[in-house]
Amino acid sequence: METGDHVVPIFNGECQNCGYCKSEKRTTNLCENFRVNPMKSTMYNDGKCRFRTKDGKPIYHFLNTSTFSEYTVVDSACLVKIDRNAPLQQMTLLSCGVSTGLGAVWNTADVEAGATVAVFGLGAVGLAVVEGARTRGASRIIGVDINPDKIIKGKAIGITDFINPKDLDKPLHEKIREMTEGGVDYSFECAGNLEVLRESFLSTHDGWGLTVLLGVHPTPRMLPLHPMELFDGRKIVASVFGDFKGKSQLPLFADQCVKGMVKLDEFITHEMPFSKINEAMQLLIDGKSLRCLLHL
Amino acid sequence: METGDHVVPIFNGECQNCGYCKSEKRTTNLCENFRVNPMKSTMYNDGKCRFRTKDGKPIYHFLNTSTFSEYTVVDSACLVKIDRNAPLQQMTLLSCGVSTGLGAVWNTADVEAGATVAVFGLGAVGLAVVEGARTRGASRIIGVDINPDKIIKGKAIGITDFINPKDLDKPLHEKIREMTEGGVDYSFECAGNLEVLRESFLSTHDGWGLTVLLGVHPTPRMLPLHPMELFDGRKIVASVFGDFKGKSQLPLFADQCVKGMVKLDEFITHEMPFSKINEAMQLLIDGKSLRCLLHL
Repeated sequence: METGDHVVPIFNGECQNCGYCKSEKRTTNLCENFRVNPMKSTMYNDGKCRFRTKDGKPIYHFLNTSTFSEYTVVDSACLVKIDRNAPLQQMTLLSCGVSTGLGAVWNTADVEAGATVAVFGLGAVGLAVVEGARTRGASRIIGVDINPDKIIKGKAIGITDFINPKDLDKPLHEKIREMTEGGVDYSFECAGNLEVLRESFLSTHDGWGLTVLLGVHPTPRMLPLHPMELFDGRKIVASVFGDFKGKSQLPLFADQCVKGMVKLDEFITHEMPFSKINEAMQLLIDGKSLRCLLHL
Repeated sequence: METGDHVVPIFNGECQNCGYCKSEKRTTNLCENFRVNPMKSTMYNDGKCRFRTKDGKPIYHFLNTSTFSEYTVVDSACLVKIDRNAPLQQMTLLSCGVSTGLGAVWNTADVEAGATVAVFGLGAVGLAVVEGARTRGASRIIGVDINPDKIIKGKAIGITDFINPKDLDKPLHEKIREMTEGGVDYSFECAGNLEVLRESFLSTHDGWGLTVLLGVHPTPRMLPLHPMELFDGRKIVASVFGDFKGKSQLPLFADQCVKGMVKLDEFITHEMPFSKINEAMQLLIDGKSLRCLLHL
């Protein structure tokens, strides 16, 4: 990389040198040195901070990127060089949610044309799953959210059906099985809620259904699945950063976005000055925005 | 099939006509009509029994086969025609445990040459996993059992290492990770115990480890895994009958056994008259036999 290059920062880094990055037998995008770790708050190379308050106290790093600032210091393992002509405003989306959702469909589940898909939670990640399913030619894309407004963005991007679980008089998975002759081929849990996880698991077709976990589950509770339920042939896996190896695979993905294979227009819903960052966060929490561009 | 054909009965039938059997998009060996169901105790076609006591009371069917008898009535979906020259004494092993263990390695996990494997529980199913791993050229096959006698059969079939968890002063998964540079590529749970399940899950390498569940878990407890633990890239799936489609795929497997690709000599440990069936069962419960041939 050179001064002036355009880059996308990634929280799930790729050093390209460790046993995980270099493993040819098995592939994983979990780098031994730069995999996402919310507890790591310093630089990898010397374990120190690069930020200080005016009176010299350390300001810790966050998720390898620390990007809520005008300048930052990032290990090169967490920077992806992209084409200089790519629109930077859209490219910021590749740092997390959009890559995670699209990648879960393309890489983790490898959804095929004609498949049926259900997406639980239509935030940025869930809608990126919808976009992924659309680009793969899924025949049915069922969006699920308790926020009825989500139907609008959902339809704009590609859902074929919308379910608000609050409107149902039966369990969600029963409704989805009725709609899809026994269940969807793939379900994606993007809500970070264990009840939703269980419904998404049971919404897939027995024998071959696959559930991909994308939501973060900050709960002490264990998986609400009985071991014998796995014998019905339903599978569940989790996906970090959509199984993209960031540094080596994101440049191609960025290119596909620039060429219009993947449509990113719907994902940036707001734009405001950096000074209003707390307001932007509140819109996100309230489910009113997907992504807000902050500028100086 | 014709009168006089040699057949192997299978509990996990294959009608070859239902949506599951005929699905080309996705494959599953769970037949809509004859998948294993311990609660089904009559014939599929008319829902009636074919057995009666002397005074006319029904004797119910068990697991589609009801083979603890000289004669039985079985739906043709649960009978596999095999070569007339195949040794029947060995072919009985294909009805359940050996197909389950071998198939879990060949079909479910698709273990490749050089891979590292750990097997939890060295009963007939676990030892069939060992034989499967041996035939695939696994570089390391770690057998785990709390019965120290299991090392003998284990070594005869192909384990490279034996661990008795009772001899350890650290968690089992830590020991296995130490032995294998971070964990095995594949682990197989053949014990039907949730603590063992958790250890087998954690014994695999993060990023790509796969745990295959083969044990039956008669517990009300749920999976002892936290949802966030899936984000370390370890996977867990269950396997029914080794993912073999019995009727269509077992004839080839039988042939491979006859030709010596798979060695079955070690699996039949006892032979006794049918009248001693309770004694045979006790040997099984005590971990002293793998399979006992019963004859008239």
